[in-house]
Amino acid sequence: MCQPIDFYFDFSSPYGYLAAHKIEPLAAKYGRSVTWRPMLLGAAFKATGSAPLPSIPLKGDYAKRDFLRSARFHNVAFRLPDPFPVSTVAACRAFYGSPEEKRVPLAKALFRAYFADGVSIGEAANVLKIANSLGCRPEIDSQAVKDKTRAEVDAALAKGVFGSPYVIVDGEPFWGIDRFDQLERWLREPF
Amino acid sequence: MCQPIDFYFDFSSPYGYLAAHKIEPLAAKYGRSVTWRPMLLGAAFKATGSAPLPSIPLKGDYAKRDFLRSARFHNVAFRLPDPFPVSTVAACRAFYGSPEEKRVPLAKALFRAYFADGVSIGEAANVLKIANSLGCRPEIDSQAVKDKTRAEVDAALAKGVFGSPYVIVDGEPFWGIDRFDQLERWLREPF
Repeated sequence: MCQPIDFYFDFSSPYGYLAAHKIEPLAAKYGRSVTWRPMLLGAAFKATGSAPLPSIPLKGDYAKRDFLRSARFHNVAFRLPDPFPVSTVAACRAFYGSPEEKRVPLAKALFRAYFADGVSIGEAANVLKIANSLGCRPEIDSQAVKDKTRAEVDAALAKGVFGSPYVIVDGEPFWGIDRFDQLERWLREPF
Repeated sequence: MCQPIDFYFDFSSPYGYLAAHKIEPLAAKYGRSVTWRPMLLGAAFKATGSAPLPSIPLKGDYAKRDFLRSARFHNVAFRLPDPFPVSTVAACRAFYGSPEEKRVPLAKALFRAYFADGVSIGEAANVLKIANSLGCRPEIDSQAVKDKTRAEVDAALAKGVFGSPYVIVDGEPFWGIDRFDQLERWLREPF
């Protein structure tokens, strides 16, 4: 019996967005399901001493070019949002505050809104509008949803998740959409 | 007429070592030559505020695992050196202080010594022994060689090089061996 694949990402991560288009077909090919686990890169950055890519000298300029080229390479509609990056606390809370069967559609809708349609998902009002359009009414200001979100983010960090996307299969970690080639070989047969 | 591919790397970079096995066959397939350009990641880290992977919480542990898995994935003999990383100033100077026709064989020998044979190329004596075995007598303590090396490293930073490997083709930059798939498509046809 195969365990689900754990798919960690931040809603403001271009590479997470690209990976969100790839993970389900890849998992299905090897008889796996996917557990979507949004987290907050800001919390990971505190642990690693890192920072959002655009703010890093040299690497930031490269990253903007690489986002666009990677989207073309993977054949995914993409435009660099402005503002970028944004806080994804509201998006993350909306996800964990929604019923389980609504979460993946909501995640896809949030990603699409931000990276294809230019809607700033850093604003709670926009997040809630998207959630509402899917019939969700997440109580993102409730303590229960805040606590649930915090617990999920802490659990991700405890698993060693420091980037987005980050995939764990049977304990084996893969960071980045550029490890999906290794991920696929691993799903076929651990090496 | 196709321009050579600029191949930047640090001699202490596992991903640079893996890329060194791939770059020439890939370039040749598309009628290109390769200009090998060792640089010093330490200088790039100062510009980006980064640090050697093993020293970074969470990411360091992942990296060690990923080095080994990536080597298996690319089918390249590899063992994680100890000490790791090391200063590659002596190796870099030996490269730029050697005659042009000896440089690429020397680069390959230095990489192999460090990542396959467990020889610490952080020690100048080991670097010189390897150079001597190829008939090179680089004067790594001479001001001329120091200046040449410094100028090459500065030129790399000026081109935006911040990691290893880093490849530039006709002005288009590719960071990481995990961009070699995009690099190959670009060589076929820019996209």
